[in-house]
Amino acid sequence: MLALFDDEATIRHALAFEAALAHALAAESLISTEAADRIVLACKALHIEPAVLADEVSLAGTLAIPLVKRLRAELPPHLAICAHKGATSQDLADTVLMIQVKQASTLLLKDAARVVDALAGLATRYIGTPTIGRTLLQDALPISLGLRFAQWRAGLVDSIERVNREVALHARLQFGGAAGTRADLSGRGQAIAGHMAKTLELPAGEPWHARRTGVAGIAAAIGILVGALGKIARDVSLLAQNRIDEIREPVIAGRGGSSAMAHKRNPTGCQTALAAATRTPGLIATVLIGLPAEQERGLGGWQAEGPVLAEIFQLAAASASAMAQVVEGLDINEIAVSANLEAAGVGTDIGESSAIAAILLDIKPRG
Amino acid sequence: MLALFDDEATIRHALAFEAALAHALAAESLISTEAADRIVLACKALHIEPAVLADEVSLAGTLAIPLVKRLRAELPPHLAICAHKGATSQDLADTVLMIQVKQASTLLLKDAARVVDALAGLATRYIGTPTIGRTLLQDALPISLGLRFAQWRAGLVDSIERVNREVALHARLQFGGAAGTRADLSGRGQAIAGHMAKTLELPAGEPWHARRTGVAGIAAAIGILVGALGKIARDVSLLAQNRIDEIREPVIAGRGGSSAMAHKRNPTGCQTALAAATRTPGLIATVLIGLPAEQERGLGGWQAEGPVLAEIFQLAAASASAMAQVVEGLDINEIAVSANLEAAGVGTDIGESSAIAAILLDIKPRG
Amino acid sequence: MLALFDDEATIRHALAFEAALAHALAAESLISTEAADRIVLACKALHIEPAVLADEVSLAGTLAIPLVKRLRAELPPHLAICAHKGATSQDLADTVLMIQVKQASTLLLKDAARVVDALAGLATRYIGTPTIGRTLLQDALPISLGLRFAQWRAGLVDSIERVNREVALHARLQFGGAAGTRADLSGRGQAIAGHMAKTLELPAGEPWHARRTGVAGIAAAIGILVGALGKIARDVSLLAQNRIDEIREPVIAGRGGSSAMAHKRNPTGCQTALAAATRTPGLIATVLIGLPAEQERGLGGWQAEGPVLAEIFQLAAASASAMAQVVEGLDINEIAVSANLEAAGVGTDIGESSAIAAILLDIKPRG
Amino acid sequence: MLALFDDEATIRHALAFEAALAHALAAESLISTEAADRIVLACKALHIEPAVLADEVSLAGTLAIPLVKRLRAELPPHLAICAHKGATSQDLADTVLMIQVKQASTLLLKDAARVVDALAGLATRYIGTPTIGRTLLQDALPISLGLRFAQWRAGLVDSIERVNREVALHARLQFGGAAGTRADLSGRGQAIAGHMAKTLELPAGEPWHARRTGVAGIAAAIGILVGALGKIARDVSLLAQNRIDEIREPVIAGRGGSSAMAHKRNPTGCQTALAAATRTPGLIATVLIGLPAEQERGLGGWQAEGPVLAEIFQLAAASASAMAQVVEGLDINEIAVSANLEAAGVGTDIGESSAIAAILLDIKPRG
Repeated sequence: MLALFDDEATIRHALAFEAALAHALAAESLISTEAADRIVLACKALHIEPAVLADEVSLAGTLAIPLVKRLRAELPPHLAICAHKGATSQDLADTVLMIQVKQASTLLLKDAARVVDALAGLATRYIGTPTIGRTLLQDALPISLGLRFAQWRAGLVDSIERVNREVALHARLQFGGAAGTRADLSGRGQAIAGHMAKTLELPAGEPWHARRTGVAGIAAAIGILVGALGKIARDVSLLAQNRIDEIREPVIAGRGGSSAMAHKRNPTGCQTALAAATRTPGLIATVLIGLPAEQERGLGGWQAEGPVLAEIFQLAAASASAMAQVVEGLDINEIAVSANLEAAGVGTDIGESSAIAAILLDIKPRG
Repeated sequence: MLALFDDEATIRHALAFEAALAHALAAESLISTEAADRIVLACKALHIEPAVLADEVSLAGTLAIPLVKRLRAELPPHLAICAHKGATSQDLADTVLMIQVKQASTLLLKDAARVVDALAGLATRYIGTPTIGRTLLQDALPISLGLRFAQWRAGLVDSIERVNREVALHARLQFGGAAGTRADLSGRGQAIAGHMAKTLELPAGEPWHARRTGVAGIAAAIGILVGALGKIARDVSLLAQNRIDEIREPVIAGRGGSSAMAHKRNPTGCQTALAAATRTPGLIATVLIGLPAEQERGLGGWQAEGPVLAEIFQLAAASASAMAQVVEGLDINEIAVSANLEAAGVGTDIGESSAIAAILLDIKPRG
Repeated sequence: MLALFDDEATIRHALAFEAALAHALAAESLISTEAADRIVLACKALHIEPAVLADEVSLAGTLAIPLVKRLRAELPPHLAICAHKGATSQDLADTVLMIQVKQASTLLLKDAARVVDALAGLATRYIGTPTIGRTLLQDALPISLGLRFAQWRAGLVDSIERVNREVALHARLQFGGAAGTRADLSGRGQAIAGHMAKTLELPAGEPWHARRTGVAGIAAAIGILVGALGKIARDVSLLAQNRIDEIREPVIAGRGGSSAMAHKRNPTGCQTALAAATRTPGLIATVLIGLPAEQERGLGGWQAEGPVLAEIFQLAAASASAMAQVVEGLDINEIAVSANLEAAGVGTDIGESSAIAAILLDIKPRG
Repeated sequence: MLALFDDEATIRHALAFEAALAHALAAESLISTEAADRIVLACKALHIEPAVLADEVSLAGTLAIPLVKRLRAELPPHLAICAHKGATSQDLADTVLMIQVKQASTLLLKDAARVVDALAGLATRYIGTPTIGRTLLQDALPISLGLRFAQWRAGLVDSIERVNREVALHARLQFGGAAGTRADLSGRGQAIAGHMAKTLELPAGEPWHARRTGVAGIAAAIGILVGALGKIARDVSLLAQNRIDEIREPVIAGRGGSSAMAHKRNPTGCQTALAAATRTPGLIATVLIGLPAEQERGLGGWQAEGPVLAEIFQLAAASASAMAQVVEGLDINEIAVSANLEAAGVGTDIGESSAIAAILLDIKPRG
């Protein structure tokens, strides 16, 4: 996941954007085929040292300026002007971000699906096993252990659907030019956007540079997924407490030890998921606070969005991967489950637990 | 909107919940028809002083305990036990909240639709009028004024759809009993939930008491809508600056004055929308932070959710209502629009503005 | 605490501001003594229905406009102009807020001091009692129970000092007039501010209307205090879990019951404190996000500040009061403490616990 | 600033911690001088590849475990046990963080001081120059331009003082061992902490591992400083708008251009500061949300704190450095200042602006 958003990937996608643009401009006869071929070639050949570019980006305030400058330097003078024609910094930045969002979502949802599947297995296995349900951190009434797993899973399924929905709707090409009007393209802007979208495997659409509700929708959906994973981590870590002892994270070599206490087995996977669930809400708020962006491109809010979105995905990926490991190897102590239930002294009637769990398990995440 | 969430409405919905439950219990023969009738009658007749109840709620830590106590006191001793049977505090609290969410969304979206419609009118009218587009708070290139309005509208339309989607999916009945198992209902829990949902005009579904992703989805959707309204307010207030003078809020008696300067015309509607957009992100973060709730009912996070959701809706309603007034009466100074464009010295080519605006205007919010 | 910030109190303080201003203007011979006396009288006599004023405020976008209008209507025409002379809406709003902040802090710190004192007692009593220390929700090594209490107390003491410091530095009179220059006061502005500060029992100082770091400092300090109280609540609720059973909240009639389970004893005081600690961080973020306010008075961010600050104080007060009750009556089960320690199997060596606790207990909150 | 918090620096400080500990243990005769010398030598010689360690840290959930393992591998078996004696992972992590906090604050405040000094110069120069003051984004009344600069400066000065205060109070050594009791140190724990504090040039103090109010205080103080810098950036960018034209960022080669519009001069320094002010509040909220940490070491909240604090400092440093450049080279257009004031038609009376500015300028940041 780190690799998806790192400087190298960003440069690679940026050059792919420029190549797709050149190709599209030629397809609409706005530049010559020769120019397009040369640009595409240059985009492939160009090697930019990430650290060097980073300094220039920091000075220029945008990735596009130094990158396009380098690209043009690779071209014969009369073709240099053909590169980046009709595009603006934000077209490049937003499109690159959406390529990354699409890849990152796919990667993230793979691990989330592992959690969903493992929970389905656990829920089915323990659908009739009574355990003490706890509310407000106090013993309440019996539930089936399978229902607990099915509820965890249902929260995840709902969250995955939301991510799928928002990404499908909003991870789109951005192509509008300096002020979002597709000027200087002889009226072929929409067609060019169509070609680019196809090449870059993103849906096309009208420019959305100053309309960030889609980005916020994606961010919020990921944030909710992190919360759903955090819910599982919270419960696992509470159930793993000594004296409760109902559940433990699997033993993984090198994991969960203590630098001072050899006897400890720390819930390190849950720690990762809970740290992510602690950090994500503030980042979602940051994306939302940028929504009232100034005019045709905001100052400050928009620039905050990209790194924050990348961070949200990193945290989500770390959480999903950690919880996949935790849930797939979950260590259930049926003796403690049963002993704690008995100690609670509230019988073993799990009501309609099994029926509810069965219905919840029948719900599949939709694309 | 205040009235939808105030103590009186909350008590009214809570009693409606208890009445619907009694009716459903009788329909499934778990209590007698007589008991149900008496409970329904008592729910209608019972008058509770909000201020007095508030103190008891604060002590008990939940609305249900003092409310059910009062309800039972109205019933003959042998029927008292029939009230609230099979339900728990959270069933009542969550269901009441979702009744309020549904009503509040309807009210909110009415004002949001006014903004959408007014913007469609403005976008159509000014679809061919060139104005200077501004990026990073600096003059950029011409755009059509109609495109600006169409983009504002498109952000709103997207946000309204998200609210509709999340509310339709997640504003559901909660009915699960003490630990979410529908215990003590002789296996008729699902049927009872079905009856209640019908009476209360909410979709039914499995208990979601400890699975709060739906609430978070609703909250985030409202938060994004507030941001989309804030975007409009940001731009109106920037365009209304002296020396820019392109747009002003309508003159409304008693509004936008200054206690010290008679000559001022303050953007008071935008102020309301921008204050809402400043306050909402932190509240969304609060809902998200509560997602990793403890076990079968969280401690702290869950209790934070209700008042915060109510606050989010209040802010959204204030914003939508203020911006409906602003946009419906927007005062456009075409002379300044034209003069500022000329002063920018970048010509008048608006590219494909009109075509883009036309496509954006064709998108209708979906239910 | 609710009463400190309600509409009635706000109106009362606003009239006190106007009276203090009139008095100060007369002292500097800018209005006649007769005018001042009439204004002061009118401020005392004026009764404004909060609900009616609220509607006007909402329309005007500021409290000062309708309030000053009513005040002037009470005066003979030739004196009406003397009221509010040299002041602006924000002078009134900010000064009223700071009067409320000062009162609210005093009230809040009283309850916080109760927690500090109760913890000192517990820490002293249990300074030598070994208990199992837990890290990452797992048994670690023994600590003294007194040290745990002393650590809770030290976090509170630090937080109280921060509140005292920020309130002393920043809860000041705001008096600058329309643009913060004390114009229209014949050069007597500073003297007038001095008189007003004395009357209103606030420190004077230069206008800070567009410089909100002090407000943010106060908000953050309260937020940290809420976190320190939340820390205690987190631990009490974890230690109160069944099977752990080391600590319980005191039994308070009407508190902590369950509408469905008679056997439960819920940590309702901790619930209040944890809900407050969940809600406060987002509110602090809201105050911080408003810091980059526009020019001589911001649009949106500033208006968000007042209600959010009031909410922060409400939450803090609820938390401090709840935790004072919890800690003063804390129910410690020494048998469980000892049994859990033994079960952990890590001996009873509490290291330098007692010495550390003694040093921590020696630290007193400073004004 | 990046270098202060990167993996290499973290490893270097971690080894310095271990060396200081060894030295202190020997000084108190808990290990032999030979052991101490060998450990100190090993700490100096040990080269750890950051990328390799990062993977191990991610698995172990803590830096200390793999680092101490490598350190011990460098020692003869009989001395290996002497390394890290009495310490725990969190001692190392928290102490390293505080070394970084101290260094980062010093670096940050150097740039902040540049802004303060430049503003003092500007305020003095323009103390008598009238300019239009603007409230709610509308022309209000004249103020002196010098007063505006003096107010910006006063906000910064207050923020710098808060940072100094919090860092002085709370950037301390953490040394408590596994459960914060300084166990296994023969009662010499306090003395050992004293030696270590001296070596590491941090104040000593009692263990604060589970008491995070100090960290929150530091984070909030930095957040407020970022807001005070953001305030300047907000105003500069508004005053730099075309048609207003009163102020511009200095011309810096390679900065503020546009990839599509050669004529633009973007406020890129302000962009950096405003992006920082957009991102910081959510991060402060994250630190606050972690305050109610679980027991003797929290799960999730604590682990979120370190990277978030590092990020807050990075953003603050970027903002301070950008604004130092902006303010030191601020390009003031006196003709536009004067023309805009005249256009406002509210005269030129700046009231007591100069006197207020003079008092504000007299305030010096205190250490």
